[in-house]
Amino acid sequence: MTGMRIAPLLLVLIGFAAPSSGDEGFWPYNHLPAKLGQTEWIERLRGASVRIGGGCSGSFVSDAGLVLTNQHCVRSCLAQLSSPGKDLIAPGYRGGEIRCPTMEIRQLVSITDISARMKDAIAGLSGTALRTRLDAERATILAEQPQSPDRNCEIVPLHQDALNELYCYRRFDDVRLVFAPEADIAFFGGDPDNYNFPRYALDIAFLRVYADGRPYRPEQILRPARTSVREGDNVYLSGHPSSTSRGQPMAVLDFDRSVALPDSIAFLSEKRGLLTAYAARGANQMQAAATPLFRTENHLKVMKGRLQALNDEAFWAGKRDTEEQLRARIAADPSLDPETHFAWDAIANAVAMRRILHDRLVLLEEARSFQSELFQYARTLLRAEAERTRPSAERLPEYADANLAQIERTLAAPAPIDPGLEVELLAWSLSTLRASLTPDDPLVRALLGRESPRAVAERLIAGSSLAHAAIRQNLYRQGIGAADDPMIAFARIVDAEARAVRKRYEAEVEAPMLLHGARIARARFALDGFDIYPDATGTLRLSFGKAVGWTMPSGTSVPYRTDFAGLARRATGAPPFALPPTWVRAMRDLDPATPFNFVSTSDTVGGSSGSPVVNAKGELVGVHFDGNIHATGREYGDNPGLDRAVAVDVAAIRAALRLVYREPALLAEFETGHR
Amino acid sequence: MTGMRIAPLLLVLIGFAAPSSGDEGFWPYNHLPAKLGQTEWIERLRGASVRIGGGCSGSFVSDAGLVLTNQHCVRSCLAQLSSPGKDLIAPGYRGGEIRCPTMEIRQLVSITDISARMKDAIAGLSGTALRTRLDAERATILAEQPQSPDRNCEIVPLHQDALNELYCYRRFDDVRLVFAPEADIAFFGGDPDNYNFPRYALDIAFLRVYADGRPYRPEQILRPARTSVREGDNVYLSGHPSSTSRGQPMAVLDFDRSVALPDSIAFLSEKRGLLTAYAARGANQMQAAATPLFRTENHLKVMKGRLQALNDEAFWAGKRDTEEQLRARIAADPSLDPETHFAWDAIANAVAMRRILHDRLVLLEEARSFQSELFQYARTLLRAEAERTRPSAERLPEYADANLAQIERTLAAPAPIDPGLEVELLAWSLSTLRASLTPDDPLVRALLGRESPRAVAERLIAGSSLAHAAIRQNLYRQGIGAADDPMIAFARIVDAEARAVRKRYEAEVEAPMLLHGARIARARFALDGFDIYPDATGTLRLSFGKAVGWTMPSGTSVPYRTDFAGLARRATGAPPFALPPTWVRAMRDLDPATPFNFVSTSDTVGGSSGSPVVNAKGELVGVHFDGNIHATGREYGDNPGLDRAVAVDVAAIRAALRLVYREPALLAEFETGHR
Repeated sequence: MTGMRIAPLLLVLIGFAAPSSGDEGFWPYNHLPAKLGQTEWIERLRGASVRIGGGCSGSFVSDAGLVLTNQHCVRSCLAQLSSPGKDLIAPGYRGGEIRCPTMEIRQLVSITDISARMKDAIAGLSGTALRTRLDAERATILAEQPQSPDRNCEIVPLHQDALNELYCYRRFDDVRLVFAPEADIAFFGGDPDNYNFPRYALDIAFLRVYADGRPYRPEQILRPARTSVREGDNVYLSGHPSSTSRGQPMAVLDFDRSVALPDSIAFLSEKRGLLTAYAARGANQMQAAATPLFRTENHLKVMKGRLQALNDEAFWAGKRDTEEQLRARIAADPSLDPETHFAWDAIANAVAMRRILHDRLVLLEEARSFQSELFQYARTLLRAEAERTRPSAERLPEYADANLAQIERTLAAPAPIDPGLEVELLAWSLSTLRASLTPDDPLVRALLGRESPRAVAERLIAGSSLAHAAIRQNLYRQGIGAADDPMIAFARIVDAEARAVRKRYEAEVEAPMLLHGARIARARFALDGFDIYPDATGTLRLSFGKAVGWTMPSGTSVPYRTDFAGLARRATGAPPFALPPTWVRAMRDLDPATPFNFVSTSDTVGGSSGSPVVNAKGELVGVHFDGNIHATGREYGDNPGLDRAVAVDVAAIRAALRLVYREPALLAEFETGHR
Repeated sequence: MTGMRIAPLLLVLIGFAAPSSGDEGFWPYNHLPAKLGQTEWIERLRGASVRIGGGCSGSFVSDAGLVLTNQHCVRSCLAQLSSPGKDLIAPGYRGGEIRCPTMEIRQLVSITDISARMKDAIAGLSGTALRTRLDAERATILAEQPQSPDRNCEIVPLHQDALNELYCYRRFDDVRLVFAPEADIAFFGGDPDNYNFPRYALDIAFLRVYADGRPYRPEQILRPARTSVREGDNVYLSGHPSSTSRGQPMAVLDFDRSVALPDSIAFLSEKRGLLTAYAARGANQMQAAATPLFRTENHLKVMKGRLQALNDEAFWAGKRDTEEQLRARIAADPSLDPETHFAWDAIANAVAMRRILHDRLVLLEEARSFQSELFQYARTLLRAEAERTRPSAERLPEYADANLAQIERTLAAPAPIDPGLEVELLAWSLSTLRASLTPDDPLVRALLGRESPRAVAERLIAGSSLAHAAIRQNLYRQGIGAADDPMIAFARIVDAEARAVRKRYEAEVEAPMLLHGARIARARFALDGFDIYPDATGTLRLSFGKAVGWTMPSGTSVPYRTDFAGLARRATGAPPFALPPTWVRAMRDLDPATPFNFVSTSDTVGGSSGSPVVNAKGELVGVHFDGNIHATGREYGDNPGLDRAVAVDVAAIRAALRLVYREPALLAEFETGHR
């Protein structure tokens, strides 16, 4: 099986119509909807789009490999390049290129349909056998691909596994940071303004992609539009939305509503409180807590928005009615697989098992009870060593050969660790482990013995040498056999049970959900045709909509865009509404009417961050970076009347480079597409 | 109208049967269920029961006014008597009596039915008019009662206002602390063991009630049983459960499930994280954070339990079916008030308004955004001054004449304030105010101006002199007119809007809910008779059940009691499983087989803490202090198969006084009932 170039597909716009009114949907480039119409520049948009490691999107904007994305998408890179005395996040980064230690950028090269092969492979199987076979077949397919360090393929299950596609990428691991503004303007308004609009944030960053030590020359680049979007303009957004649950059955939504989301919200809220109090201790603690606090607050807002969406009675009733109608139609159609009728019950049983496994899965395998960077390193070392002794196809997928280079880079990257924060988070998360599993649980006893969670955390953090990148890299290469690092010993105690619960979850929850979810999806295809977009999968999708404001349920109308004059009015001088000195100085030079941020109806979720937004001519008009508060519920569906995506206007990027940061070379490269 | 002594009622056991199987229910002493049978000692139990200020229960156990309750019910007293250098909570209190500055104990004297008068008063009214008339009639009735400092009456609406009763109490404000054990044994197991069983906690305290400067001589006292309860024994529990929502319509439960509980859980979780990190800074911070942390964790566990109860599909469906059946029966019965049929719709409308008002009500009037003791003092001073200019009947009810003495005592009590914790909590809660109402809200702008929440908090806490009891008392007596305390100025900005949202809530949510809730309750009485107990109202109730363990959903059987041998096994030496030195020393002298804590099926909720538990002869066998994890959902109903109340066994109290604390005089008084 060879990869089929997707370019030819693009001109054959397949006639799938979006199922709902409005502009909802994350459309794969090989299944674009007819309503999109004929757009010549779409191949350019696809080719210029890139996926940025860690769950972000971006686009090539010059023929010398310049990539435009969000500042919050390069936060990890800035954090890794910081050190206790020298913070790069607050001041941002300008003046010379510097390599991001672990950042990886991928560009989509081909999509191949492997649905039939995957379906055949698991025919007649269920539970553990299904899951094992599925993993093995996936590994085999990936192993059949040409192996090369700059090439990477993944198998993408779409429509609850009813379709499977092989996505292959060109992979770049030499990514250099070119420009990031100060945190105070990139995240102006902070948590209060996050997921709100009107918004005034320059959440942008420039990276440069290198290949063979030279700036990469992409085939396709996006060029900035001369004029900003106007109200009502069509816009198109190309990015990598991470995942959604729009096609999930009600049993799964009920699990999210009653278990997963309340649980996450309690956890994240507690973590937020802890980090807030830690950050208040002093400047160093503030620096150490800044990135985890940003992530926690962002995640918390999204989880609250999701719960609110599911708690909306009308939304819930609509979902339920749709499911009941589909179920009735399937039952009434004798031409369909008769087992489909029972698929919902099978999924409900799988969800019942999920309820049982949930706590241990989240606490142990997802490591919620081990909130520590050093623990993560210890687990990675431990698992990498164990997994590498097996054939690639039999490993935990994240330790397949194709991923090892990135794992080693992550271990070898010198990211600063704050021991005080490590102790605080680990002590707290261990105490929640004890509270959840009870002090009588054998694993809790094995981990804590007669010590308090804090004493254990202090002992592990003080005794571990995993804060040193060189030691980590050495342990990865030489093996951990002889090492007596206490954190590795601790992670080893956790590991057997963490793996066991994961295995049960995959076999008893995931496997039946895939099997029966695919059955439902196939029946739906048979009844309704292929007029639906698949749930987001972290792969390249096109969204489109219009740049328009909205009217809030309270009756307030929100205009579609903001300008620098609004920024000046909102800047109080106190964080998170304080302008950085560069902006304070430049304010008099800036045209107050310059568009700053704008909203559109284009569908977005997490992972869309950094997506290029283009106009009807395919010209770059903005960079997506946020949603409005309603959009936090987009996991489960799009509400076109309320949900909006938020982007930085190119006019603001131009003005900032010219008048605030005085970066003529970067500005010229951005404007002309050449260096 | 004069109070009718309730004693005569007690021998006429009214024939109401509990509606459900099992032993569910909080039965008022004047409406005891027939199934309780003839019990001669019940008048003694009623007479010995007391209500302890702050939402606790207790009982007289000697003719010299000795009261037995929980250590956690005297925590506020211990905190008030502590000072930064001298903590009373951790070591507990022994050796000499000391007056609790603000503690009040009340003993029920009479119950009078005033339903007809209340119903007549509000006939034909709704909204603001209803609410105003209701408050005025209540105030008039209270004003008609003989006024005396040691007498206090309250109006208790039962069955969603279908019944109204006047409860009158003898009030004692001279309450002295006699004995409290160390926090480490009173709350052994800490948050992990709280609301769990097996449990090993000596959560007891002794108080002494004084009247006219001499120990009060109660008419009724409880005497400890010689033998501990055995498995299957009947037990009776007499206390003041605070409130429940068992009779609330589904619209209210849906509000709790989708809005109030998730919201509380997020708030309390964040506060818990903040306090945890603050406590970790050092010994003084640990002391300052201990009580708020205890309360927050306890409250959080209950809120999580409630949400879990409502998220239980079977429980929800049962509640829904019951409501639908009642509605159908009412619709089918032409003899009933035809408006009753629409009562549910009217309540749903009120709940829709509640959704709109909820945020501002909680943030402003319930002061969730102003987490500061000094703010509370400021508001009390501000409101007391404003309200005292009006006739008692027209005031906010909490500022009626009858409550002013207690308000002044609270202001005048020298409770230690930790300015660091005040700043931390106020800065955080102000930032959540901004996040909830948005930075653009006029009140947010008025409160924060161009400052950060932390800067505002620091300015207010450093600039306010309300930490000084003498200054507070002086401001209360002399008036705050001339004071330029910044916290009072701040509270003044909040107050207009806080009062406004409260007023709207009372008129547009509470009033229709009372009106239509009463209609439903009356229809239900007409259909089914009076065979139901009212929701808990903080008034004296009798619960009863059996001392039996239970089987967890996982299949594990939990025995009904623990003993000292189990305590020894569980004591790791690390908090919260560390024994205090007194216990470490005494362990060899204690009989390992001594019963420590036991569970029973008796119905309990918050406020039941400290309730005496008696056997079928009316002898004291324990003091209630906790529930098991399932019991956290008792707000909405009792699950007799799973829910259990947890008590300290009298045998453990005896052994602790004799062998651990060597308190022969106290032990003798407890054993004999005399001093």
